Amino acid sequence: MQELKDRIVNEGKVLPGNIIKLDGFLNHRIDCDFMGRVADAFAEVFDLSKVDMLLTAEASGIAITAICASKWGIPMIYAKKAKSDNIEGGLYQSEIYSYTYKKTVTQILSKEWLREGQHILILDDFMANGEAIRGLCDIVSQAGAVLEGIGIVVEKGFQGGGDRLRDAGYNYHALAVIEKAEPGHIEFRE
Amino acid sequence: MQELKDRIVNEGKVLPGNIIKLDGFLNHRIDCDFMGRVADAFAEVFDLSKVDMLLTAEASGIAITAICASKWGIPMIYAKKAKSDNIEGGLYQSEIYSYTYKKTVTQILSKEWLREGQHILILDDFMANGEAIRGLCDIVSQAGAVLEGIGIVVEKGFQGGGDRLRDAGYNYHALAVIEKAEPGHIEFRE
Repeated sequence: MQELKDRIVNEGKVLPGNIIKLDGFLNHRIDCDFMGRVADAFAEVFDLSKVDMLLTAEASGIAITAICASKWGIPMIYAKKAKSDNIEGGLYQSEIYSYTYKKTVTQILSKEWLREGQHILILDDFMANGEAIRGLCDIVSQAGAVLEGIGIVVEKGFQGGGDRLRDAGYNYHALAVIEKAEPGHIEFRE
Repeated sequence: MQELKDRIVNEGKVLPGNIIKLDGFLNHRIDCDFMGRVADAFAEVFDLSKVDMLLTAEASGIAITAICASKWGIPMIYAKKAKSDNIEGGLYQSEIYSYTYKKTVTQILSKEWLREGQHILILDDFMANGEAIRGLCDIVSQAGAVLEGIGIVVEKGFQGGGDRLRDAGYNYHALAVIEKAEPGHIEFRE
């Protein structure tokens, strides 16, 4: 998606530790008009007629997924980080390692809202090592639901998470794959 | 908003500790078609022509705010919980007490994306004690931005947060105010 690549180049900031900040439009301040066009780009690569639920992870995936859900008329659900007492029993759980928080995090999702045989499209804003997505795939599998695809706005290709999903045969698409990120220089995979 | 009240009565679950779960449509699984109508209801009570940024708090306010932002063509921003190392200096910070997590949480928001003189509408899914909203108001004030209003989908009226904002003269609106919640019986404020 060329508009996305242009915004990454023009507005992205590369910080030490391979952190690429796109927080002016993607995951802090959200440019919702632009995110609508991101939703359109996802709609071109996935067959939405097969999808009956969008799934993402708290917190940074929620905005883009809500915008997609709203545009497409498909409900969404998000896995929470297990800390709240507002979710009682009947949970799918998945342990992932959060590189952002530098610790193991438990993703939880109510069994009430994800059922066997549902057709799921996973969406997220960023793909780095792929731990969050691995957890979501695990939850889909626990539910006996059908994973129709995985859509990522920005993949950090050099961290390997996306390639592991491609190699494993998932219907995986990222709208921009960053191959190299240094201050002042961002290179995309062709 | 009658449709909202009907869904609260029909789908809400009251748990010990004054917890009202609406996680089938509001803040775990999100019914985005319905949330579009919630956005329309907010548009009737606030003058959106005065608003140039929507503000909410991570995580459960993000979905409804993103749907409003997308429908209204207004950018949004959300305050994060301070734990990630992905936000460097230049932050507004506000300390709030989280009754959900039973501890003090620091809300952070990049100074880059909220500026003096911007006109802000705060949105959130739930109002209980009002700590999250108090923190957001504090951040708006730190920025020298103009608070145009506060919109809440569901207020737990018996916990006092909404009344404190009304008494303080804020342009505050909740689409449903629950006055009493017991298992099997939910009563709204007229």
